[in-house]
Order: sequence, then C-alpha cells, then structure tokens
Amino acid sequence: MNDIDIETIKGIANQLRIHSIEATTAAGSGHPTSCCSAADIVAALFFGHMRYDPKNPKFHNNDRFILSKGHAAPLLYAAWAETGLFPAEELLKLRRLDSDLEGHPTPRLSFADVATGSLGQGLGVGVGMALCARLDKLDYRTYVLMGDGETAEGAVWEAASLAGINKLNNLVGVVDVNRLGQSQETAFGHHLEVYKDRFEAFGWRTEVIDGHDIEEIMEVLAAVGLGDQPLVILAKTLKGAGISFIQDKEGWHGKPLSKEEAERAIAELKPSAKSGIGHSIPAPTNLPAPNLAPPASYPPLNYKQGDMVATREAFGSALLRIGEVDQRVVALDGDTKNSTYSDKFFKKFPERSTECYIAEQNLVGVATGFSTRGKVPFSSTFATFFTRAADQIRVAGISMANIKLVGSHVGVSIGEDGPSQMGLEDIALMRAIAGSTVLYPSDAVSTEKLMEEMALKKGVFFLRTSRPKAAVLYNNDEKFPVGGAKVLRQANGDKVTVVAAGVTLTESLKAADLLKNEGIGITVIDAYSVKPLAKDVIKAAAQQTNNLVLTVEDHYPEGGIGDAVAGELSSEGIKVHKLAVFELPHSGKPEELLAKYGIDANAIVRKVKALAAG
Amino acid sequence: MNDIDIETIKGIANQLRIHSIEATTAAGSGHPTSCCSAADIVAALFFGHMRYDPKNPKFHNNDRFILSKGHAAPLLYAAWAETGLFPAEELLKLRRLDSDLEGHPTPRLSFADVATGSLGQGLGVGVGMALCARLDKLDYRTYVLMGDGETAEGAVWEAASLAGINKLNNLVGVVDVNRLGQSQETAFGHHLEVYKDRFEAFGWRTEVIDGHDIEEIMEVLAAVGLGDQPLVILAKTLKGAGISFIQDKEGWHGKPLSKEEAERAIAELKPSAKSGIGHSIPAPTNLPAPNLAPPASYPPLNYKQGDMVATREAFGSALLRIGEVDQRVVALDGDTKNSTYSDKFFKKFPERSTECYIAEQNLVGVATGFSTRGKVPFSSTFATFFTRAADQIRVAGISMANIKLVGSHVGVSIGEDGPSQMGLEDIALMRAIAGSTVLYPSDAVSTEKLMEEMALKKGVFFLRTSRPKAAVLYNNDEKFPVGGAKVLRQANGDKVTVVAAGVTLTESLKAADLLKNEGIGITVIDAYSVKPLAKDVIKAAAQQTNNLVLTVEDHYPEGGIGDAVAGELSSEGIKVHKLAVFELPHSGKPEELLAKYGIDANAIVRKVKALAAG
Repeated sequence: MNDIDIETIKGIANQLRIHSIEATTAAGSGHPTSCCSAADIVAALFFGHMRYDPKNPKFHNNDRFILSKGHAAPLLYAAWAETGLFPAEELLKLRRLDSDLEGHPTPRLSFADVATGSLGQGLGVGVGMALCARLDKLDYRTYVLMGDGETAEGAVWEAASLAGINKLNNLVGVVDVNRLGQSQETAFGHHLEVYKDRFEAFGWRTEVIDGHDIEEIMEVLAAVGLGDQPLVILAKTLKGAGISFIQDKEGWHGKPLSKEEAERAIAELKPSAKSGIGHSIPAPTNLPAPNLAPPASYPPLNYKQGDMVATREAFGSALLRIGEVDQRVVALDGDTKNSTYSDKFFKKFPERSTECYIAEQNLVGVATGFSTRGKVPFSSTFATFFTRAADQIRVAGISMANIKLVGSHVGVSIGEDGPSQMGLEDIALMRAIAGSTVLYPSDAVSTEKLMEEMALKKGVFFLRTSRPKAAVLYNNDEKFPVGGAKVLRQANGDKVTVVAAGVTLTESLKAADLLKNEGIGITVIDAYSVKPLAKDVIKAAAQQTNNLVLTVEDHYPEGGIGDAVAGELSSEGIKVHKLAVFELPHSGKPEELLAKYGIDANAIVRKVKALAAG
Repeated sequence: MNDIDIETIKGIANQLRIHSIEATTAAGSGHPTSCCSAADIVAALFFGHMRYDPKNPKFHNNDRFILSKGHAAPLLYAAWAETGLFPAEELLKLRRLDSDLEGHPTPRLSFADVATGSLGQGLGVGVGMALCARLDKLDYRTYVLMGDGETAEGAVWEAASLAGINKLNNLVGVVDVNRLGQSQETAFGHHLEVYKDRFEAFGWRTEVIDGHDIEEIMEVLAAVGLGDQPLVILAKTLKGAGISFIQDKEGWHGKPLSKEEAERAIAELKPSAKSGIGHSIPAPTNLPAPNLAPPASYPPLNYKQGDMVATREAFGSALLRIGEVDQRVVALDGDTKNSTYSDKFFKKFPERSTECYIAEQNLVGVATGFSTRGKVPFSSTFATFFTRAADQIRVAGISMANIKLVGSHVGVSIGEDGPSQMGLEDIALMRAIAGSTVLYPSDAVSTEKLMEEMALKKGVFFLRTSRPKAAVLYNNDEKFPVGGAKVLRQANGDKVTVVAAGVTLTESLKAADLLKNEGIGITVIDAYSVKPLAKDVIKAAAQQTNNLVLTVEDHYPEGGIGDAVAGELSSEGIKVHKLAVFELPHSGKPEELLAKYGIDANAIVRKVKALAAG
C-alpha cells in the first residue's frame, strides 16, 4: 500500500459518486445507485491498493480490474479519470455516440480488457488472467467486482470452482452485496452468510466486511495473496450509498437522478469529496514481459493424399505442431480432450493446458481471459456444447477477443449418439457473432493450414471438425487463406455448382463421379471459409452453371452454409437451392442418417438431376 | 415402500447391468460403465421406492424421473423394460434407426419427459416439475439422477439455488459420484464432502451414502419429503460397478465391452440377477388432475390505431389478458420483469409466477419442466440474455417442449445501454432451433394476437419485442396466423418489395412516404412471422417488383430476416438485398444508431433509389 490515508480514500469515493451521478444525469440514463454502492471499494482498490501504471493501463504486470457488474460503468470511468488517464470533463459525454464511455464498458477503452454488462461473466475471464499470470511468472493480481444479483448466474460458479481447484491466490473477487436487484430484492438480501458458505464450498477464502468502511476494506486488502486459495470479499453495501434520500430504497435501479435530485445529492457528498489526482499509486513489480511474438513459420505437414484422417484428429495434430513453436498457444478443453484430440497438446504441454471440466461457459470465459494477456487460446469440445457458451462467445465478439474455438462431432454424421450430441446449429450461432470467422475444413491438410491462420489472425474464430475419417484431398503445400474456397471439380457444360464442406464435400465428390457416369457435370466447391465466404469464387462458378447453386450441409437449414450463400449471392441473381437436415434427427448409423436426411451422394444426385431437368 | 426385499432389488440391479452391457455391446457403442455405477440406485428407485403406474408413464400424479446423465440411457431403458412397459428384447435395438431407444433419451419415448445428454440440464427441468406439483396440489415427487462430472455445469447451481430458495422438498437429486469423467478423473474424485458442502450452501439437505448398498439407499429414500428442503443423495459409486475387471478403472468411458468381455461380465452378474417383472410397484396417490384445457376464447383487445405502445408493453398486457382466462399459463422472469412488463402478470397471479433471478439457463430449464406437466410457460428477459440459455433452448427443441420465450430490448434501437444489452443475434439463434417458431411483431395488436397463437400452439416459440414505443397499426380484430405476413403498402409500378419487422417496419413506412413524394413506389411487408416465413406472400409481392426484395432488420446480417428470405426465395429467382447492422454497434441515441448503422428511413430511401436506378 502507498501512504494515502483513509480520509483521502473516503473523499475520493465521494468524488467518484459525484462523477457517477453527474454523468448519468447528463446522459439521462444509467445506473448511479449501482455505482454508489461500490464506490468505497473501487476507491480503495484504485487509490490505496492495486499496483499499476495509471498512464499505461495495458502494462504487462499491472494488476487487472474487471468490472463484472458492467452497469456500474460510470464508476469505473470516474476512477480512471481520477487517476489522471483522461480529463474528468469527458465523463459528461457518458453514453454518447461521440464518446467511447459507453453504457457498459467495452475494450474500445484502453482500460477495459473485456466488455461487461452481460452479468456473471467477469469471474471466468479473471480466472483466465490469473492462470496466465502464473504461466508467465508475473505477480500481477486480478480483481473482479461482481454484483450480488449476478451470483445467481451459473457461470460464476463454474469460474469459482476452477479457481478453487487451481488454488488461484492471485485472484480476488469482490461481491457488492447491495441487496437490491433490478425488479425486487435479491434472493438473499443482506444475508451475507449465504454467499460466504457458497464461496467456501467452492474452495475460496472469504472475508465479510462493511463495504462502506474504508478501514475494514483496506484491512482485508492488506491480506490479499496470503494462503493458497482465491479470496472473495463479501461487502455489505447500500444501493445508492451516500445519497441519504435514495440509499437502500427499491425502485432506483437503472434510473438517473433528476437535475434537482442530483444537485441535492451532490450537496450532501461535496463537502467531503476529494480528488484522486496527484496521489501516488503503488507501482507494479518490474518483471520481464512474456514473449508474445509469433514464430517465423510453423513446421511443415506430412500427409499423403488419400490417407484417411478425421479433421478432429488433424486439429489435435495441428495444435501440437503449432504449439511446439508458438509459445503464445494455450489449450483448454471441457473433459472431451480424448475425443477432440486436444489431449496430444495436453500431454506434451501440461503447463500451457487447462482442463475446464464439463463447464463450457467457463471454457470460453477463461480463454477470453488468456487472450487479454496476449495468448492465443484454443478451446475445444463438441461443437454443439459450445452452444452452452453462446453468450460468452457473443460477449467475446463485443470484447474483440482473440479466441479460437474448435468444435468437433458435427451433424448427423456422428451417428448413434443422437441429436443431443450433434452440432446442427453451430454455424448459425457462430456466424452471428460480431466479427467472427467460421471455418469448416474437409480434410487434414486444410484443417492444419486453417489452424495456422487461426493462430496468426486476431478475432473470434470457430473451426468445425468432424468425427468420421475423411480422405486427405490436398497437397501439403496447398494454401487456405481465410475467405477462400477451392474449386475441386469444374468443366464446361456443368449443370450446377455444388457448395459443400466436411462430410457433405466427400458426398459431393462421390455424387460428381456418379453423375459423370450419366453424363451430367457438376462444379464442386470446398467452402472451407463459411464466414467470410468466398463470394466471388462461388459467383464466378455459378455464372458458368446457369446461376444454379446447390448447397449441401450437415447442419439445419437455418443460418448455415445455404443461408450464407443465398444471403450473399441472391442479390446477384444466383439461385441457391439447399440440402440440409430439415428435421430433428434420430440416432442411427452415420451413412443411414446421411441418407435419411437427404445429404448423401444419392440425395445430391437426385437433386442435381431435378435441377438440371428443371 | 412396497414389500420388495433388499436381495430382490440387488438382483434387479444386476439384471439392469446385464441389459446395459448386452445392449451396448450389440450396438457397438454406448456407455455401459456409466450405467453400472447407477444401477443399484435406479433399481431401488424404480422397484422399491417411486410411486407410479408403470403401464401409464404419463399419469399426472406419477413420480417423475429425469436421467440428467443421459448417456446412461441403456440403464433407463432397462428399468422400464423390467417394469414390463415393453419387451426386454427391444433393448437389443439400442441406438438403431428403427428403434426409439436412442443413444440418449428423447421424448419419442413415452417415459422420457425431456431429452437429456447435454449435461447439467436435468435439475432445472426438475425444479419446474416440482414447482408445478406444488401449484397443482399434487404429491408426486421429482427425482433427478446426475453424474458427478456434470455438477461442474453452472446450470446445476442455478437450479440448485432456486430449489433451495423455494424449499422444494418434493425434489430429490441423486449424484452418482463414480469418480471418473470422460477424459480423466473429475476434479473431486471420491471426496464427497465437496458435493455435500456445495449443496448445503445452496439450501439442500444432503445424505452421503454408499451407492451400491441397497439397504443404505432404501434408508435415505424412506426419509424423502421430510423437512422443508430439497434433498440430494450423494452416492459414492464405482464406474463399471459389478464388473470386477473394469470397475473403477480409467479408459472405460463411452466404450462398449467386446463380445468376450461382455460374456465374462455377464457370467459374474448372472447368478444373482433377478427380473423386475411381476413385482408390485407403489401406486401414486389418486388426486385430481389439473384442468389443462385451453379456454374457448380470449378477452378482446381495445387499442386505437395510432396509439403509441411498445411491443414489450403489449406483451405484458397480453400475458395478463390471456392468463386471466387460461389457467395453463405460468410466467417466469429473470429479474427483468419491470422492463419486460411481465410484472403485470406477476402482481396479479403470484402463485403462477416464478422469479428465476439472474439465471437465464434456469429460466428456460424451469419452463421446460412446467411444459412437461401441461402448462404453457412464458419466460421473459432481454432477447440477448436468452443467448445465455442457447443450449437449454436447443435441447427444448429436441425435447419437443412447449415453451414460450419472449425477448425484449432488441437491436440498436435500445440506444444508450450499448452492445452488451442489444439483441442482435437472437433471430439467428432461435431460427436454428429444431421445430422452433420465431415471431417479431411491430405493433401492440399483432403482439397480442401472436401471444394468443403462442398460448394455443405447441412448440418452442420466440417472440421478439422492442423497447421503443410504436404506433398501433392494426384493427383490434385483425388476424395474425403463424406463417403469415401483412402487405401494408402496395401499388402498381412499385419498384422494390421491402420486408421488415419491428422498428424497421416503422422506418420502412416512413421511407415509403418519403419515396412517394419523389414518385417512387415501394411495397412494404410486415414479416411478423420470421419462421415459418410467409414465403408465398413475399414471393407474390416480389414478382410485382421485378423480383427485387430489400430486407431491413435491427439485427446482424447473419441468420436474420434477410438470410431467411434469401434462403427461402433465392431459388425462385428473387433477388434479396439486405440492410442490417453490419458492424459491432456503439452506445448512442436510438435514432442516431438507426442512422449510423443504416437501417433508418433515410437509409432505406437511399438503397431503394440505388436499386430502382440499377
């Protein structure tokens, strides 16, 4: 701790309250009361405890702070303004289109590592950061401020459990127990013992305090890092604390004060308010930064065309091959690593591997945490189980995070396990993530090359891998840029352009052979990059086949490859017909299911003939 | 309890083991060892404890059993075969296309209320059933069998918390703690005290037992229902229990025994195996069934055209209006009820309302539970927060559940709260759910009428409502069938057919007026039914406008209205152009954001002019 005194921190807390009130009243919306309950905690953390360079929020060994209760954004902004990072006048631009001080924090701001506002996600990100500090031998700590209401989210307990298992004593949670939710009192009100029992059962050290008593706050903060458990500070607070006529009252969630109310409130707070500017902030330790440079190249491939290799297996090989030379790569899995083949990496690099157990929300949240520290995290599980983390993936998009999700076992081609295990909606989900890239390789070479693209390019990437073995189609030196496609069959007089990927590409090639015997030619395109789509390649091919395109996919018809192609090319006069899994599928043998749901070679043959005749 | 003796239950358990081994060996895949660990528990529940009519699995006062660890399906199937529901020979058809004994249970089977296999979802469904029993004054109990690994899922703790809060002493959880996950040991192995501490912290009574000691199992089951807490039985078991050469060994997850191994295992089990057939099963109490008939009609509407009413508000009014006369309707919300307007119903019908707090996975899981008991549950929260429950919704689709999800605050039109609160991917997500219906009303009348459709039709329904007020467009007696669309503007010589819904419909009508002033006519269609889409209406209109369609939506371009229209109509030669939110949006005023992201009236005018010129 620095030599700042308790009274000064109290005064800064009130200054943060004043800023929060002024900003939300100016904006005409926002959550001032949710700021006030946490103002003392934030003042103590930012001005009396955390070690960071306030001029360089990204410094590699700064303590990290995640405002998981993102609706208290004005408080966070006020704190950084009071460190001197930007002028306090900016705060009055809250929520305006011309300011990045948005309604909830996003990484458009240098000091926000991730977007928050979808509650319950901050702790998982914090676990990733804390694991990363340990991996990088840095002594920064990660602080996550949560609301009491948000601890109802299961994601919090997935994260809490993993933090306990990994004994992350460099992770500190703070729960602002202000008793009041949005629409009513929380389930547990001010019964802080409920939170205490829960966190202790999940392996945490707990401290229950009065969240408005700076002395008490500083006392428990002084013991951060002791012992071998993560610490959670359970702070009893009042919503709207410091505003006598509002605090602890219902009906004040997400409501700015009127101009008159704001004046009255500020009159109460002003006399004791103090600026944070000019106070020294404890400096971070000077430890070397990790090497975050990508390697000059990756080791070459060694496949033979025609070899039978499942793309999920090629993913496992690629992860290991790339990870051997790229120290940024870390792997995470949700107790499926012997099916996804990430176990190859886990065995070789245990220190860079995190078993997240059966908790997919956290599998994504922890990856986002790693990504904020410059790592390139690859999370793997069955494709359809990423659906469990859809909101974490959505927020990763808003966070502009650099995470790589690899989902195996897609479509009816998994066979006997049945619909609950089949990824049939994953393309739709992943395409709709802001800034995402969706890749769907059909053979081992393209899988490996796309993995290189994923390691080198920034953003939320999804790679869809398949369970069945598939023939290696490409030479080891073939290139697979994101946004490309491969024209595998094409001849003058082709009747239809067939666009496919994965198991349906295999079926399309079979269909091409069958049709050729009957004198019907088709163009076959490997659409390995579903988003961005190789619009021009498909368009050019389609124009040679009377504008007729047939998409074939082991996915539901909504939001998949067919919709992607139609959505991009219908405006150009291309006619897109779709084969897809049009009903809820059943268990059965893979080949039976491909036939029953009309996406096998025979179905393609039938459809092409109908189109050619039509 | 009936008069069956301990030795007989032990014998039945071994018979269930034999069936599980035989079926999975015949299928060549499956999880026999996960069946064996739970066989004694299941035998005790089904043949010595639960009260149900085995000939009528749907009887309204039968105890309910949910196999949350759905991969132990063969065990469930064996138990029902041994009650006499179907011949045991059927078990050998496991996982075949010609049998509904699928790899994981689905409600294609009369005794499976819900699909399981995506882990961690059973308990939330069980909470819904237990709440429903209380509402219907029935004394059936709900038993949920979970694996130890699946308790890593946050969804389990969302459900556990709500069960504790509601003191559901008619709910019994059983955790089969067999120590071994899929790819390695679970985090807590056989440390049952971890599970005990956790469930106790979440408000449950706990019993730790040896899961292979029938006497001990029966003893704790005898105390089911005592006290005012839900009960969880934490059963220490061995994976593969009963097969001497496999039990408690790693490497046996999801692996059938070879024919030889199966013979050896069965030789060990056979001497003590006993059939369940012929043993009496405790009967359920004879209590009256709830009235599950829909009303003859719903009360009429009373809006005036031109009145300004947000569709979210109309949802709240509709829920109350419909709920007044339809006793099947129950409401659930995730601490947003004062924003979604479900609070109107909550206030009037507290006994039919469930506050799920900020736990959206459970908000959907509990609804699915209610739906299995014949209720019509409406769950509401912000549209984008349903993304948190994407996997629960996916599985509700596989469960063919009858749930109604109402998501408010969609798109950039919410304004200042920023991207984390904006539903911009919800249509993509909901369209890709098997059997789903996606509705998007633009005014109060259509919202109310679509709510009636939702109450009367079965399936997973999603209604997308908006935050801003909007003019009432329709007469109170206008009809809005699912699958329809309304042509609001149309004239000879129209240049483009504009398809929109919600705030973009308002903008399209403004654009039509602006364009009319310049002598350019457009057809405007209210696409209130996004799935199923009124394909024929849009096609017919498009054919009058030179096959030109412009879709406009407050949603990302992927998987939304534009892709839906293109996906359905591109094959017919219709050219679909899209206006949508093409980048990650920012906070700002609603009208600023509509302009910035190019979906307001001016943007429509510009695009129509370009198309008309082109």
